[in-house]
Amino acid sequence: MTYCVGLLLKDGMVCLSDTRTNAGLDNISTYRKMFTFEVPGERVILIMTAGSLSVTQTTIARLHEAMDQEPTPESSIMLAPSMLKVAGIIGNTLAQVRLEIDEKLSMSQGASASMIVAGQRRGGGMRMFLIYPEGNFIEATEDTPFLQIGEHKYGKPILDRVVQRETSLSDGQKAVLLSMDSTLRSNLSVGMPLDLAVIARDALQVSSSRRIEAGDEGFRAMSEAWSVALRDGFGRITL
Amino acid sequence: MTYCVGLLLKDGMVCLSDTRTNAGLDNISTYRKMFTFEVPGERVILIMTAGSLSVTQTTIARLHEAMDQEPTPESSIMLAPSMLKVAGIIGNTLAQVRLEIDEKLSMSQGASASMIVAGQRRGGGMRMFLIYPEGNFIEATEDTPFLQIGEHKYGKPILDRVVQRETSLSDGQKAVLLSMDSTLRSNLSVGMPLDLAVIARDALQVSSSRRIEAGDEGFRAMSEAWSVALRDGFGRITL
Repeated sequence: MTYCVGLLLKDGMVCLSDTRTNAGLDNISTYRKMFTFEVPGERVILIMTAGSLSVTQTTIARLHEAMDQEPTPESSIMLAPSMLKVAGIIGNTLAQVRLEIDEKLSMSQGASASMIVAGQRRGGGMRMFLIYPEGNFIEATEDTPFLQIGEHKYGKPILDRVVQRETSLSDGQKAVLLSMDSTLRSNLSVGMPLDLAVIARDALQVSSSRRIEAGDEGFRAMSEAWSVALRDGFGRITL
Repeated sequence: MTYCVGLLLKDGMVCLSDTRTNAGLDNISTYRKMFTFEVPGERVILIMTAGSLSVTQTTIARLHEAMDQEPTPESSIMLAPSMLKVAGIIGNTLAQVRLEIDEKLSMSQGASASMIVAGQRRGGGMRMFLIYPEGNFIEATEDTPFLQIGEHKYGKPILDRVVQRETSLSDGQKAVLLSMDSTLRSNLSVGMPLDLAVIARDALQVSSSRRIEAGDEGFRAMSEAWSVALRDGFGRITL
């Protein structure tokens, strides 16, 4: 399983992914699920992936291939004239890879994957898309400024309550980390380390990016402070 | 969809269920999902149901039938010599009904249901079971003092953080209501009104039971206070 979440805020975009991949409970590995593509000052694209590793790795490899071998605005996400077209290329690549792999598997196994794509090109606005396994996609809006893939339910209540378009980038990072914290507690197949990235509005590059390891003291302290705050708040409420 | 949750606490059991039933998004009804069977001072059994209404209604009807027509300790939950046997009777009835209905449906539709059974008989301890569609079951324990069926993920983080065996009945009611509140916000197919029941230890009857209607002022105030507490706590945490 996986949990990835992206926020599209007034001042920029915040993205967080876990790194746990498992084939059964007895075969657990760490794989990066966040991929960045950037030409600073020109365009920045961040992709987060959930689902079958064979599908997501091949999709990312195909995107690289299309960028490197005779790239055209129709095939390369680095040349596409808009973020909408970028989402279209990624969606088509994902759907094609999925179909190819599905043909090798029996119907019952069916591999699939979904992705969050966040980015901005020079002259355009920040945009964030959720791409479904079939290649179609939806976009984050003012009303719904966050997108999630993978094990999304445990971490949704906190996002519903604190994330709005006007939320600061700092609060946005707190919100996704607490959302991840709730998910980590409830689903073993979502696991540390985490990848956290921020793309400030009009920066046209990844503004900050860090990997949070299992023993990270700051994350542990924040998780503990949140537990205390929840229990305090709970204690003050009257039935 | 449905959300039902039961707590097995030191001082008693707390059960909460929603009432929304839907066949598609355009066919929504209100049905009670909490059923009580009691002979005060002798035994009390509370059943909460999730899943296909055709399965759960028929199962409850069969349990009534078995109690009324030549009841035996092997067939009637009101005569069974232990709560374990009660869970066994309910599990067998549920599995049988499911098989019968499945035969009428194509494989792809497959109706199923799950149940939470809470109860105590004179001379025995309080016990709470989660009964799976196949009729097998698990039991709440000291380590895991709550059970959930239906749309359980949104409301689990709050339970994980505040519910322990020693939690008071008053705090237990608060916890299940806040857990339900998070679920109501995130899943349209879980809906008001709610049924809340408490069975105090050794009371051998339902100690209190109330229906919380959509406009309930107390529930609305609690929900709002919880949102404020979450946002306050969130604001005090440093990244």
